[in-house]
Amino acid sequence: MKDRVAALRAELERQGVDGFIVPRNDEHFGEWVPASAERLAWLTGFTGSAGMAIVLTDRASIYIDGRYTLQVVDQVDTGIFETRHVTEEPATAWLKEALGKGAKLGFDPWLHTEAGIRRMETAAKAAGAELAPLAKNPVDAIWIDRPAPPTEPVVPHDLRFAGKPHGEKLADLGESLGAHGLDATVLTLPESIAWLLNIRGSDVPRTPLPLGFAIVHADATVDLYMAATKLSDETRVHLGDDVRIHEPDTLLAGLDGLKDRKVLVDQTTAVAAVTTRLREAGAELFMGDDPTALPKARKNEVEVAGTRSAHVRDGAAVSKFLAWIDAHDPGSLDEMTASDRLEQFRREDNLLRDLSFDTISGAGPNGAIVHYRVTGETNRPLGPGELFLVDSGGQYLDGTTDITRTVAIGEPTPEMRDRFTRVLKGHIALATARFPKGTTGSQLDTLARLPLWQAGLDFDHGTGHGVGSYLSVHEGPQRISKIPNSVALEPGMIVSNEPGYYKTGEYGIRIENLVCVREAEAADGERPTLEFETLTQAPIDLRLVDLDLLNGDEKAWLNAYHEGVREKLRPLVGDAAGWLEAATRPV
Amino acid sequence: MKDRVAALRAELERQGVDGFIVPRNDEHFGEWVPASAERLAWLTGFTGSAGMAIVLTDRASIYIDGRYTLQVVDQVDTGIFETRHVTEEPATAWLKEALGKGAKLGFDPWLHTEAGIRRMETAAKAAGAELAPLAKNPVDAIWIDRPAPPTEPVVPHDLRFAGKPHGEKLADLGESLGAHGLDATVLTLPESIAWLLNIRGSDVPRTPLPLGFAIVHADATVDLYMAATKLSDETRVHLGDDVRIHEPDTLLAGLDGLKDRKVLVDQTTAVAAVTTRLREAGAELFMGDDPTALPKARKNEVEVAGTRSAHVRDGAAVSKFLAWIDAHDPGSLDEMTASDRLEQFRREDNLLRDLSFDTISGAGPNGAIVHYRVTGETNRPLGPGELFLVDSGGQYLDGTTDITRTVAIGEPTPEMRDRFTRVLKGHIALATARFPKGTTGSQLDTLARLPLWQAGLDFDHGTGHGVGSYLSVHEGPQRISKIPNSVALEPGMIVSNEPGYYKTGEYGIRIENLVCVREAEAADGERPTLEFETLTQAPIDLRLVDLDLLNGDEKAWLNAYHEGVREKLRPLVGDAAGWLEAATRPV
Repeated sequence: MKDRVAALRAELERQGVDGFIVPRNDEHFGEWVPASAERLAWLTGFTGSAGMAIVLTDRASIYIDGRYTLQVVDQVDTGIFETRHVTEEPATAWLKEALGKGAKLGFDPWLHTEAGIRRMETAAKAAGAELAPLAKNPVDAIWIDRPAPPTEPVVPHDLRFAGKPHGEKLADLGESLGAHGLDATVLTLPESIAWLLNIRGSDVPRTPLPLGFAIVHADATVDLYMAATKLSDETRVHLGDDVRIHEPDTLLAGLDGLKDRKVLVDQTTAVAAVTTRLREAGAELFMGDDPTALPKARKNEVEVAGTRSAHVRDGAAVSKFLAWIDAHDPGSLDEMTASDRLEQFRREDNLLRDLSFDTISGAGPNGAIVHYRVTGETNRPLGPGELFLVDSGGQYLDGTTDITRTVAIGEPTPEMRDRFTRVLKGHIALATARFPKGTTGSQLDTLARLPLWQAGLDFDHGTGHGVGSYLSVHEGPQRISKIPNSVALEPGMIVSNEPGYYKTGEYGIRIENLVCVREAEAADGERPTLEFETLTQAPIDLRLVDLDLLNGDEKAWLNAYHEGVREKLRPLVGDAAGWLEAATRPV
Repeated sequence: MKDRVAALRAELERQGVDGFIVPRNDEHFGEWVPASAERLAWLTGFTGSAGMAIVLTDRASIYIDGRYTLQVVDQVDTGIFETRHVTEEPATAWLKEALGKGAKLGFDPWLHTEAGIRRMETAAKAAGAELAPLAKNPVDAIWIDRPAPPTEPVVPHDLRFAGKPHGEKLADLGESLGAHGLDATVLTLPESIAWLLNIRGSDVPRTPLPLGFAIVHADATVDLYMAATKLSDETRVHLGDDVRIHEPDTLLAGLDGLKDRKVLVDQTTAVAAVTTRLREAGAELFMGDDPTALPKARKNEVEVAGTRSAHVRDGAAVSKFLAWIDAHDPGSLDEMTASDRLEQFRREDNLLRDLSFDTISGAGPNGAIVHYRVTGETNRPLGPGELFLVDSGGQYLDGTTDITRTVAIGEPTPEMRDRFTRVLKGHIALATARFPKGTTGSQLDTLARLPLWQAGLDFDHGTGHGVGSYLSVHEGPQRISKIPNSVALEPGMIVSNEPGYYKTGEYGIRIENLVCVREAEAADGERPTLEFETLTQAPIDLRLVDLDLLNGDEKAWLNAYHEGVREKLRPLVGDAAGWLEAATRPV
């Protein structure tokens, strides 16, 4: 790493700047970036999913969040990089201290939004320094063996999974743009383009995305900036004549064509390279929300039916896996073998294309690490008296799944059962909630926490995230969280319901099902009311439930849920049928 | 009204403007304004607690919110004033349409914040018009018999009620200003000044406020702008030498003394007259939050003890009143006699100084009008088979109360009992909630609504507002509401717990107790946890409770609450002891 940082400093000198910002994200701001864009990992060694380094001539720092405080020290040479917490010790403060007067801090305008740059600029100015956009990313300049950008094939997403022809989606979007007096929108998020055009790809792991950009016009035609080599004839036929295909490196020239047009871009993810060029080209910019976000979040009936089916098959795989664990003596399995076996069960399904994220397979104290990923070094047996937490999911053509189950290995302690039951009570409270139209996930978050709060406990992550339809397992704009969010839940939106409890150094508990918002059947109601349909189908470990803590309604929910699981999965679990019967017994 | 509007138009012509904005608020943005500041009522006839008129040369409009859509039509000549809903048909839209190009719209800079003016300015500019601050309010100029500003005596608020000498409060505030690098703050809210200096007054109804302004310096001295005639020698001695007294009309000259000083003002309530003058004087302005709001909201131990005592005596008055109602045949009382009798019971207490707001006394359909105030015209009997809703409170020297009880007159219907019980379940859920430090009222709001939501019902007002200590019955910054609010609940904060249900044209239900935030005793908890202590002491009508809808925990709360009420009130209710015994029987 020392050599790389030295080379970067030399390159910075060549480019005439005194520093450079290296974020983890690429120009699409997705959760995953292709190998060609793993600049932060290449430069610093840090492989976390979020972070940023700043390299100056004499100092360098790396910013990470609470998930990565241990990992960063393992992976990064702290003799070179000062490690800092991104919100508690923000870069702006360090810049004020570390940047000299008159210094020029370079940045790659393809890797930052305008708002992000503005924040940095304020800090730089406070130090008497300034920010400078660089035409050529200096990391790329010195990264000799940098992998080529991915060119995986793009395939049509079949109508029997997508539910709505992309021509109709385009017509709706074009009409909506027109109704708002807009001429076009620039889409920089690959999931927006994939949803809109009913295409999928595999340019990044775990999410079936083809990377690219698109300009969608109010006349419902599209300029798609995606490498021609990725597009087969079949895909071109699927896209049709209203989708004009261009090489990605011609995007900026394409933006010039929007002179005098009213153009909508997403204010939270559109990179400065795009917005700056639009301004220079004389377009009238509207910084708003990606117009595909809400229609994509509201799954249509075909998508909902698809995800129901995917969840049944996924639940069967998970159930076979849970039965397999129970068939082994405590201590005879470990996190890695378990995780691998679960993947095998999932891969028996014809429609599975990938896992939807790297499985979290945490035994004992590892279960308390919320974003744990097992490695050869951390791998531990599923020991007697421990809890085992598995958070996993699949990318099926008909739906994306995400499920967490926590199971007892051997005999659990009364405390474990108390905590598990509190988490379950929160899970049930959310699963059974009815709420008026207009209610946001923020308003429901407390329901999942209250049983823990009553005992002076809590968990430090969101209660629920949106989930795509054979797309990203983390999808906005809705979420269920303490953090205020103004997006109302709407029928067809899929969110996770995943309260947890974590005792550092001892065990972790999480119970996660995906749920789908639907109209409630409230016979005597006065107001349009919504509720959740639980999609995920797999037993919840009854050995961990303290029945004395459940009230009658909660027991009724648990029994009804298990009855549904039993009926749906019985035909699919083969040898595990006996296990399933016992695991879903009424209580 | 026609003559007044004509006179105003003539005055506008004299002052060289084409229109004028007449808000309901005065320069202190309080809930109540003195008679001298009732400009909106004088000009339009409208007496609601919020509203605004705009008078142009040829058109005029009045803006009101949903509470006043009926009242405005009753009170205002709609031949002169177009009536509009303030959020659904905002003034900005009307201005764009009604203002001519080049028009000048006048405003009184003492009656608007800078942010408010900015919003109006945007609308005016869109119409090609401009805004003009006027040195002399044109309504005052034509209001010949305008009452003089109030000059009610200001009295010290005794330390045995205030709990903390004002010298200490000043020292804390001065230190806090210094720690933030500030030299001074200008307080424009009378409740802030009353709290800070431990003084009370009676310049407006229902809230013991002395109107005035103050400049508080980092050296813990104060320039108080309050009419000398209001301040007795005793009050001057109480205030001491660190509080310099000035006539209110010298405030602007006083602000000039803040040249080159860093000055904090409240961004939501400081009027433009003040902020503009500070800028002109060369002060460095910081638009933030009134620095007394949070310390005032966190009641000290003496204040909490005081409000507990006030609530017991207030609860005794309410209980005597409820017993008195029950002693009468259905139909033999009416809303006005009931309201008057309740006030008499309250006035038996030596420490009562006033009601804390105009009593809401609503029988049958009138109970469904959330902000109902009985008049001779609307007065109706408490008829058999009806619900009677009474929302009322007192200003006691040792605390401010606010309680709503809903009682059955004769036999309630099963639906009434179902709805009442759902409201009660929400009330109990909030009353028994424990929550980690840092939790906001927004996060708890749903708990009070969920039992209604489950049946497709809801209520259209906030769940809880802050309450002062012998101060305003509506006090920030905390609140319990669907509307996101970032203020964490802290020990000592008093809020109301008042879910309701309203069936238009039939009946209204609300159960309101005040609660105080305190540290929870969570023996096995891991996190600092808070809970509510219920302050209000009065029976909840058991005839309206459907016990089948309550679970064991809810019944236990109800019985424990009633046991506490019985024990505390028995010595105070005299003849009503037998009624109290029955009303608080275990269920």
